[in-house]
Amino acid sequence: MKASQFFISTLKEAPADAEVVSHKLMMRAGMIKRLGAGIYNYMPMGLRVIRKVEAIIREEMNRAGAVELLMPVVQPAELWQETGRFQAYGPELMRVKDRHERDFVIQPTSEEVITDIARQELRSYKQLPKNFFHIQTKFRDERRPRFGVMRGREFTMKDAYSFDRDKEGALKSYQVMYDAYCRIFDRFGLQYRAVAADTGAIGGDASHEFQVIADTGEDALVYCPTSDYAANIELAEALSLLPQRAAPTQPMAKTPTPGKSTCADVAALLGLPLQQTVKSLVLATDEKNEAGDIVKSTVWLLLVRGDHDLNEVKAGKVAGLKAGWRFATVAEIEEHFGCKPGYLGPIKTIKPVQVIADRTVANMADFVCGANEADFHITGVNWGRDLPEPDVVADIRNVVVGDPSPDGKGSLAIQRGIEVGHVFYLGTKYSKAMSANYLDETGKPQPMEMGCYGIGVTRILGAAIEQNHDERGIIWPAAIAPFATVLCPIGYDRSAEVKAAADQLHDELLAAGVDVLLDDRGERPGAMFADWELVGVPLRVVISDRALKEGLLEVQGRRDAEASKVPVAEVVAQVKARLSV
Amino acid sequence: MKASQFFISTLKEAPADAEVVSHKLMMRAGMIKRLGAGIYNYMPMGLRVIRKVEAIIREEMNRAGAVELLMPVVQPAELWQETGRFQAYGPELMRVKDRHERDFVIQPTSEEVITDIARQELRSYKQLPKNFFHIQTKFRDERRPRFGVMRGREFTMKDAYSFDRDKEGALKSYQVMYDAYCRIFDRFGLQYRAVAADTGAIGGDASHEFQVIADTGEDALVYCPTSDYAANIELAEALSLLPQRAAPTQPMAKTPTPGKSTCADVAALLGLPLQQTVKSLVLATDEKNEAGDIVKSTVWLLLVRGDHDLNEVKAGKVAGLKAGWRFATVAEIEEHFGCKPGYLGPIKTIKPVQVIADRTVANMADFVCGANEADFHITGVNWGRDLPEPDVVADIRNVVVGDPSPDGKGSLAIQRGIEVGHVFYLGTKYSKAMSANYLDETGKPQPMEMGCYGIGVTRILGAAIEQNHDERGIIWPAAIAPFATVLCPIGYDRSAEVKAAADQLHDELLAAGVDVLLDDRGERPGAMFADWELVGVPLRVVISDRALKEGLLEVQGRRDAEASKVPVAEVVAQVKARLSV
Repeated sequence: MKASQFFISTLKEAPADAEVVSHKLMMRAGMIKRLGAGIYNYMPMGLRVIRKVEAIIREEMNRAGAVELLMPVVQPAELWQETGRFQAYGPELMRVKDRHERDFVIQPTSEEVITDIARQELRSYKQLPKNFFHIQTKFRDERRPRFGVMRGREFTMKDAYSFDRDKEGALKSYQVMYDAYCRIFDRFGLQYRAVAADTGAIGGDASHEFQVIADTGEDALVYCPTSDYAANIELAEALSLLPQRAAPTQPMAKTPTPGKSTCADVAALLGLPLQQTVKSLVLATDEKNEAGDIVKSTVWLLLVRGDHDLNEVKAGKVAGLKAGWRFATVAEIEEHFGCKPGYLGPIKTIKPVQVIADRTVANMADFVCGANEADFHITGVNWGRDLPEPDVVADIRNVVVGDPSPDGKGSLAIQRGIEVGHVFYLGTKYSKAMSANYLDETGKPQPMEMGCYGIGVTRILGAAIEQNHDERGIIWPAAIAPFATVLCPIGYDRSAEVKAAADQLHDELLAAGVDVLLDDRGERPGAMFADWELVGVPLRVVISDRALKEGLLEVQGRRDAEASKVPVAEVVAQVKARLSV
Repeated sequence: MKASQFFISTLKEAPADAEVVSHKLMMRAGMIKRLGAGIYNYMPMGLRVIRKVEAIIREEMNRAGAVELLMPVVQPAELWQETGRFQAYGPELMRVKDRHERDFVIQPTSEEVITDIARQELRSYKQLPKNFFHIQTKFRDERRPRFGVMRGREFTMKDAYSFDRDKEGALKSYQVMYDAYCRIFDRFGLQYRAVAADTGAIGGDASHEFQVIADTGEDALVYCPTSDYAANIELAEALSLLPQRAAPTQPMAKTPTPGKSTCADVAALLGLPLQQTVKSLVLATDEKNEAGDIVKSTVWLLLVRGDHDLNEVKAGKVAGLKAGWRFATVAEIEEHFGCKPGYLGPIKTIKPVQVIADRTVANMADFVCGANEADFHITGVNWGRDLPEPDVVADIRNVVVGDPSPDGKGSLAIQRGIEVGHVFYLGTKYSKAMSANYLDETGKPQPMEMGCYGIGVTRILGAAIEQNHDERGIIWPAAIAPFATVLCPIGYDRSAEVKAAADQLHDELLAAGVDVLLDDRGERPGAMFADWELVGVPLRVVISDRALKEGLLEVQGRRDAEASKVPVAEVVAQVKARLSV
């Protein structure tokens, strides 16, 4: 393609509302154009990337035996009412009424519609397994859309849904998708990690997030460099750092710690390691009657080591907290502990509380905790001697770098990542709610076992840029670059030789299957090079009179420090080799 | 592809709500599945057709120099308020509020958004002309969605928008699109006609509808078989059928016509040709004051020959009716004519009315019209002698078959058609409303001249089927068939020879670029053939032990009366030749 037939619109400065680098660079490179909060026009340069991302996804989904269909953007509310999600989804679900005042949603995802299709179309065990996918526009009315395409409201997603006879089959379908996702992300040319993720109410261990590695990512990915253990921070298991509890060596003693309400301050004041302190967090649970009124509240004291952080997802899995918890109010805290937050501890509470100790805390000896008296802590505290054993011992903290890997094969490391894909075993949640049954060999109806598998198509663009950029702009992997190669002739409109060489190379590269753009705009070299470095085209070929006289062209990869001179006749082969076309 | 990797779901009977043949066949062939009124899931078989239609459109749009982008489905109301369409569009425009109670629309079309992009991106005459297009989901909240994808609510449309410096440039861009559309519809393999269409308030002659010819079409297409004149019925010009008015030969006479209120009945009663009668239609226009109250109404009598029909679009172009008209009420009619409808005429009205005569009526002599007295008509009426000349003479009727072509090159014929594309010169309607200006050579801002160009992607499917089907099912043109060729092995699971031959032919055809499906489901021949005739695959190759023994396979086109036996080695070449691959 020639630039004159395309639309190129680059900016020197990013708009002020662009907060992250991918957003800034996509705006500057003319890939997206803001239409409203979290709603973007995909400009020609950006759309080319989307189409390449979609094509790779589509090919690998087909290869994995999934069948493409297309479900509507606007979906009747009735189906969403069958699963209860019309009410439960919250304000992110864009609801709309038609001219007859009937309720619809603008789809954020399509479990209901695909399950409706499946219950009509998949009647017999002979038709299973089946996996349907579509690539469609989604809408989520985010409270605070930001970061460009990373957290937009309207976006493109590939979502797939598998239907199986039983859990065993569903887990096979899950594995097929997991493998397909690995191929997809491999082909994107992105560094990524598939990490185990929480399965919530479904249970089981079949949920993986596909995370693009980037320092700017919102998610923490835990992995073991010496094994294949990988999980997101919500799920990654924290073992006890103390294999067993040591015997007490200190007497319990109340110590003044005026104004020192954090573990770090207390440790510093007392000259103790932070690892000797225990952090207190107070949660509450409510029992409600049938009318929804709270009839009883229970207060829970959660203890983690001073250098550790509470993991709220893990807390929610502790018996007694599974039905939902909240942080306790200051009034509840003062009522139970007789003390304001900052000096709380498990000893001598006014009213009884349920004590949940993290695995490490449960094995600590001679530890420091709040005295339940303002400006005082207690040192030399020991389980059994100074207070009863905790009511519950559980993994309730985030892992930290250096923790032992749960598989026993090394120490944990942590990276930042951007979630761009998710494979999830759904079980019978939707099929039971919507009576999506098949008939087994005996003619008996059985609920189909489902899985769902998403890839955020437009989000891939942002994640790829967060991972691959420098001070000059984007650095696209070749497979998803808007153009794989750009030809930059110097003096295209002045030199017949340059024009002829550029046109010929353009045609030869096209014929060789290289997605090439010839910049025939007649820009000055500096501006032209800056544009393509900003846009992030992986390979640039400069055609100039000077080099042509020696029979050479200059080929430079986007990450190369300098260009290499290549004989004209070898350029096509070298470009193909470098792009692996 | 093999059928076992795909999803095939055919029905013996169409659902009761499917009214037209294309809707019935798409449902039966498993191409679409109803989700709600006018909202369909595109099942795998239907999506394949959509993708082929889209690919052809995309290729030809690119070839014509248009640049693809993607504008959002959910669009902020602000832009639609700038052009006044947020209010003016009526209930077909699906309006929605986000969580912050801000107004949005679900796009039915994208003039506002593209003009917003253009006013930001196209600043200089040097950037013009430019043509942007996208292929995107649209929503129109039709009052009565029906006919499947022909009048759905959610549908896919390709819409393109051109921007030019001046009208001359815009008309050039228009012609480029017109030509591209011809290539697109040629490639679809559909019989179509581009007909001139009304331009409404814009004026000018640059509006063409691309109509797929089908007896079941809603639109009447007027054309001259011996010239290139073609227009839709709203626009097609009706010349006077009487070159000049004959001299009166009869006296005017009131004649009893009891109960005969139609021209046909009157002509039959009086033994006169219908062409001797004149039909009266009464319209009214209202003048309003600034508060919107009607301050004055005017009554208009429109006269067309008894065998002709009023053309409401043409009536709306008559001076005095341009600002909008309505049919008169019975009360207004009785007040002005002293008579109920059915016996009205231009002679002796009680109150004065404005008389608009069709061109033919204006040249009639000795004609018959109502007497403005119930159960009476007048014969032998002559302009000038019995009543004043009409206030206005204008083309206000639909043309009929056999009318002289306006270009003087023959007689008009009429076909039925389904509108699937439209090219339209917009002028500066949107650019002026939204201040979309470019700077000319002198630095002066000028409004861009625009055109818009739509193709109903999903509607193409319905139109293609209305045109191409028989009692057994759909007959797709090869270019847009879900599969171009189907291989039907008899006993794929029983005969190793059949399986080997089918597998090999499948691979060879794929390698030759033929979009082939191998039906490996193991269905009985009758059911298998019926499925593919219903789905409408253009070419079928039957592989059977019996024919293989003679070294032959049976090749049959969907329209062929019978199969021809082809030597195995020649099948690939013959399939390619028949599909023009």
